[in-house]
Formats: sequence, structure tokens, C-alpha cells
Amino acid sequence: MRLDAADIEDFALGCAVLGSGGGGDTEIAALQAVAAIEANGPVDVIEVDDVPADALVMPVSGWGAPTVGIEKLGSGDEGGRLVQAVERWFGRPVAAVMAGEIGGGNGVWPVSLAAELGLPLVDADGMGRAFPEGPMCSMHVAGLAPEPVFLADEHGNVVTVEPVDGHWYERIVRQMVVTFGGSVPGADFVMTGQVAGTATIAGTVSLGLRLGRSLAEGGLAGLVEASGGYLLATGIVADVQRRTTGGFARGVVTIADEGNAPVTVHVQNENLLAERDGAPLAIVPDLIVLLDDATGRAVPTERVRFGQRLSVLGIPCAPVWRSPGGLAVAGPTAFDYPHAYVPVEELVSRG
Amino acid sequence: MRLDAADIEDFALGCAVLGSGGGGDTEIAALQAVAAIEANGPVDVIEVDDVPADALVMPVSGWGAPTVGIEKLGSGDEGGRLVQAVERWFGRPVAAVMAGEIGGGNGVWPVSLAAELGLPLVDADGMGRAFPEGPMCSMHVAGLAPEPVFLADEHGNVVTVEPVDGHWYERIVRQMVVTFGGSVPGADFVMTGQVAGTATIAGTVSLGLRLGRSLAEGGLAGLVEASGGYLLATGIVADVQRRTTGGFARGVVTIADEGNAPVTVHVQNENLLAERDGAPLAIVPDLIVLLDDATGRAVPTERVRFGQRLSVLGIPCAPVWRSPGGLAVAGPTAFDYPHAYVPVEELVSRG
Repeated sequence: MRLDAADIEDFALGCAVLGSGGGGDTEIAALQAVAAIEANGPVDVIEVDDVPADALVMPVSGWGAPTVGIEKLGSGDEGGRLVQAVERWFGRPVAAVMAGEIGGGNGVWPVSLAAELGLPLVDADGMGRAFPEGPMCSMHVAGLAPEPVFLADEHGNVVTVEPVDGHWYERIVRQMVVTFGGSVPGADFVMTGQVAGTATIAGTVSLGLRLGRSLAEGGLAGLVEASGGYLLATGIVADVQRRTTGGFARGVVTIADEGNAPVTVHVQNENLLAERDGAPLAIVPDLIVLLDDATGRAVPTERVRFGQRLSVLGIPCAPVWRSPGGLAVAGPTAFDYPHAYVPVEELVSRG
Repeated sequence: MRLDAADIEDFALGCAVLGSGGGGDTEIAALQAVAAIEANGPVDVIEVDDVPADALVMPVSGWGAPTVGIEKLGSGDEGGRLVQAVERWFGRPVAAVMAGEIGGGNGVWPVSLAAELGLPLVDADGMGRAFPEGPMCSMHVAGLAPEPVFLADEHGNVVTVEPVDGHWYERIVRQMVVTFGGSVPGADFVMTGQVAGTATIAGTVSLGLRLGRSLAEGGLAGLVEASGGYLLATGIVADVQRRTTGGFARGVVTIADEGNAPVTVHVQNENLLAERDGAPLAIVPDLIVLLDDATGRAVPTERVRFGQRLSVLGIPCAPVWRSPGGLAVAGPTAFDYPHAYVPVEELVSRG
């Protein structure tokens, strides 16, 4: 499979859906990916099993608040400096690039990087969606350690972090994000192809392209069918509370649903909980997607506005997140929600 | 030359003098150095010219505010992790340890590290005193780049920083210091023995020991003679203004000099400017040392207290700091003082 410039618009649509409101804006990332492919040729997308067992896979992501990412552009050299730092550290070449998270701009940006570096992109990622914290990924659930973490900003600064544990990982990296102006690209969980075969979520690049095509061609109904998701509500945004604090974008969106009680969507970079009358309609790690009825696109949390007409879609998450290990890392309790996790399909059938 | 446990008390006295009020407290560093020597044997102190031309010299320092350093002890493993990070990066062994700055606890701490690692200590440093900012060192004046900068905290975290320039060096490292609780040990300007031969200030470990011995045996008069310094004032501390902000300890000390107008000493981690009636008595990069008449010891800025009886000593700095390049890096204008630099011996002769 190859990603050509003509595929990027649909792919970005699909990544925006998988972002569950987060992962950063896809529009600028898509423009960059198209430019990178036009300059360097299309990107080979390879199965994770096709990566040589002892070759390095480099997962890349943008850390920080997506509200900042919109206005803070990269220089285009960050990826090359990341590869340089990773290769220097491990003493062997990077064989393939992978999206750390497939959701939002973070799913699209690695396409530019792969094109610029002439490297293949692995058809997998570490989340199958977007999550607000780096350790919320399948590699962590598989027991891998993230370190060293490599960060490369648009000025040319490179920082390599070897945190002693997850607490210090978050503390140091989050502080570096703030120091670098609120968002910065980075690589962590660098691993061999053999390890990637069991520690990643396979097929999510093709899933992103498939969902985007379904949405572009079949609209909301097409997306519901292709994603196995559920239309939970449709209505007008009646209130948006939002603040960017400590490197996160937090907020609550209230949607006035016609003929029903209003739906509230709780946000920490991503849409994490949709409630009606205090009862969950869908809850993290399942995906909660807000689709703008006017544009037919998934709306990132930072672009939700008063008066928008939105459809709320719940999509079952990747199976790893429903395991006890997955729920411990990224279930409702990891976000201090008082609800137990119930899969969206069960919540819908309870009605 | 060797540093044995019995030498440390005098060496620490001398480093406190060279600290010009800064470089961190020497008392805890001296206790650590004695313990490390008793456990591992004395430390060989070698001439910089005796380091093999292609072997690595690792300058080490404690970054951050000395007011925090007093209360925040290390774990004793930081040095080993720094060596590990440096050796991994450069792909060859560290042959010798060097104090990044000889002043204060930062001059004494490398003795512990050398003892624990079984490595020699180079009889040189990068400042010949203490300065508040890492780049204010002879290696910088010689045109070397500091990066990569290696930081290792007491929890086991290691961060490797490759800043794009001096501005980002300060910004990133200072932020890491704050993240690590206000002080953290680190290594930068790692260089070969050949480079160290021209880029460092030679003989400052033996100078520290010599000054300490002179002070212990001959008191203030002995120190004045051994240091080539000048007694500028003697009096009681009448006022201390102090605040720890942005990783620095800043302040102004007013000393009521008997029979003369009061002397004010301006502090940014170190004593940088001594004035009487608005005219400089001594100014950075020359050393300004406050000696406690009761104990006969140099007082670090964070231990200056109302009512102390102090002698103010001005000592000519290492020649590199009086060159145009040295003054550009660490002269009065680098600290935004309105005075031109005049050597302390000229200020004294103007009287």
C-alpha cells in the first residue's frame, strides 16, 4: 500500500475521526504531507510484520496542547533531527516511521516525515485513537519502557530524556513542552520490528484511510457503517468552557439535543466522556467523535464553537483498551471519572 | 599531587573563597568528599597537560540556586550516571573529571565523584571562581560549544540537551533545574585532553588548596597575601535583601563600614559588585569575598545574615576574564551593571 498526495485529504478526514477530538489539527498536517509527498514521492505503508525483526521502528508524535499546535508551525527539520538522535543513541539505522498516535494531526504528520526521510510508514500505531498522555499507548500496556524520549523543536534544539519512571516522564516531558512554547514533536518507545509486532495496534493507517473515504463518500451514515460506531446525539452547541493549563486543553461542551436532555462532552485534549442526565453515553477508552453537520468533518476540540450543529458518534476502541491492562492505563479511572467502563455498544443497547 | 581526606577541610575553605559567595555551600560537599575518599582512597590530581590528548575530560557542576542546594542532598549515584551518559554519547571512556567551576561546593563535589569513580581530577576548571550561568566559562571564551549538556538528578532521571544556541541552553537547562526541584548536577563542555590544555584555567585545584591553607594558618592576612587580594572594607551587615526567583538567588547586602560610608554588595548567586557611594570598590569578573570575622571563613551569599561582622575582600580574577572575549562573556555589561570594568588593583590604587 502507498499513500499518494491524492490520498491525504481522505486520510486526514479519517485521522480526525480517530482523534476523538484530539491529536492536533489535521488541516495543516495534511498540507504539509501533500507538500512532502509532491517533493519526495509517495510513502510506502508496510505491515508491521514486514519490518525486519531487528530493525528499528521510530514512533513519532506531537506533544502538547492542540490549541497551541494550530498556531505554532514546525520548520520541517524536526523529523531529521529526531532520526539523527535515535540513530546515534541506538547505533543503528531507523528502518521505518510509525505514528505514536493515529488520531488527529499526529496521525498525518508522520506521513510528511516518512516522505522527507524516504522511509516507509508502518501500518500501525500505539493508540488506535488519540490520548492526552504519552504513556497511554499499547507499548506501555505491553510492558515496554518509553525511554529514552527524544524531543526536537522547530529551532533546532534536541533533548533526550531518560526518566526513571512514568511520573517523571510526564513531569519532565510536560515541562519541556511548556519550555518549547506549548507543543513539540518527539519520539519514544523506539523498538525493533519484532517487538512492534506484538506491542502496537496493527492496521490503523489503513483504517484511517478507510474511515476518511467512507465519510467523504457516504457521509455520516457511511462513517457509522465503516467504523462500527453509534450515533449518540445530534444538536446545537449551547455552551463551551475551555482553558489551556499545564500543557493540556481542558473543557466541557454542552450540546442541546432536539427532543432530549442536553449532552455534555468532557474534554482533556480529547473528548473523553459523553453524558446525558449524568449517565454515560460513551466513555473513554471508546472514541467520542463530534461531527460538524455543515462540513461533514470531525471537529477537533479546539474548534468546537457555540452554535455549531454537531452529531456525537461513539466508536468502539481497539480491543487492547478493553483488557484489564488497557483499562488500568487509559480507562475512566485514569482520568478520575466516577463511572465504571461500559463498552459503547452496551450503553447503546441499554438505551 | 593527591587529595586525601585530611586535605578536604582546607580545600573546601579555599573553594569557598574562590566561590565569590557562590558555587553552592561547601560544608556538605566537604563531608561527602571526605566520606568518598575514606571509602575509595585518595584522589589523584593531574595537570591538564598530563591528560592524554585524545582522552575525554568531563567537567561537572551543580546547576541551580545554592539556597536550594543546602537542603537538597544528592543520592551519590548522579556522577556514575553522568559518566554513563557521556561515555554512551561519545563512544569512549571518560579519562578524568574536572570541576566546571572551582568556586564553592561545585569545586569540592567533583572530588567525591572522582573518588567514587576511581578517576583522576584535573588541576583546572572553567571559571577560576564561580559564575551564575553555565556559559560563563573559559571553554565558551575559547569558542567551544557546551552541548550536549548532561543532567542527572537524585531520583535517577537523566536528560541530555543539545541546545541550538546559548539562549536556548540557558532556557532549557534553567527550566530543567526548576523541574528537578531547584538544583541538579550536570556535565557540559566535554572535551579531549588536547582541547582542555588551551580552553581551561590551569592550576585552580591547587590554588584552592593553597588559599584554604593560607586562611586556616594565617587568617585574613594570610589569605590576602596568598591570593594577591585587597581588603576593601570591614563592618556589620546592616541589611540583607534576598529572593530566589527563576532559579537564581538575587539580593543586595548592605555592610556598615566603621568610619566610612556603607558598602553595598550586589548578588546574583555570586557577589558581583561592591559599591561605596555609588562607586565600585570591585566588580565582576574580579572576585568579591565576604569573610566572617567570627569564623574566619568565606560566607556563601545564602548564609549572609543581619548583624554578621564581615570583611570584604577583592581578588583579581584569572587573566582570561580580563581579555575582551572574557569581559564580553562575564564582564559588568553581561550582568547589566552600568559600570565599565576596572581591575580591582586599579580601583584600590585610585582609592
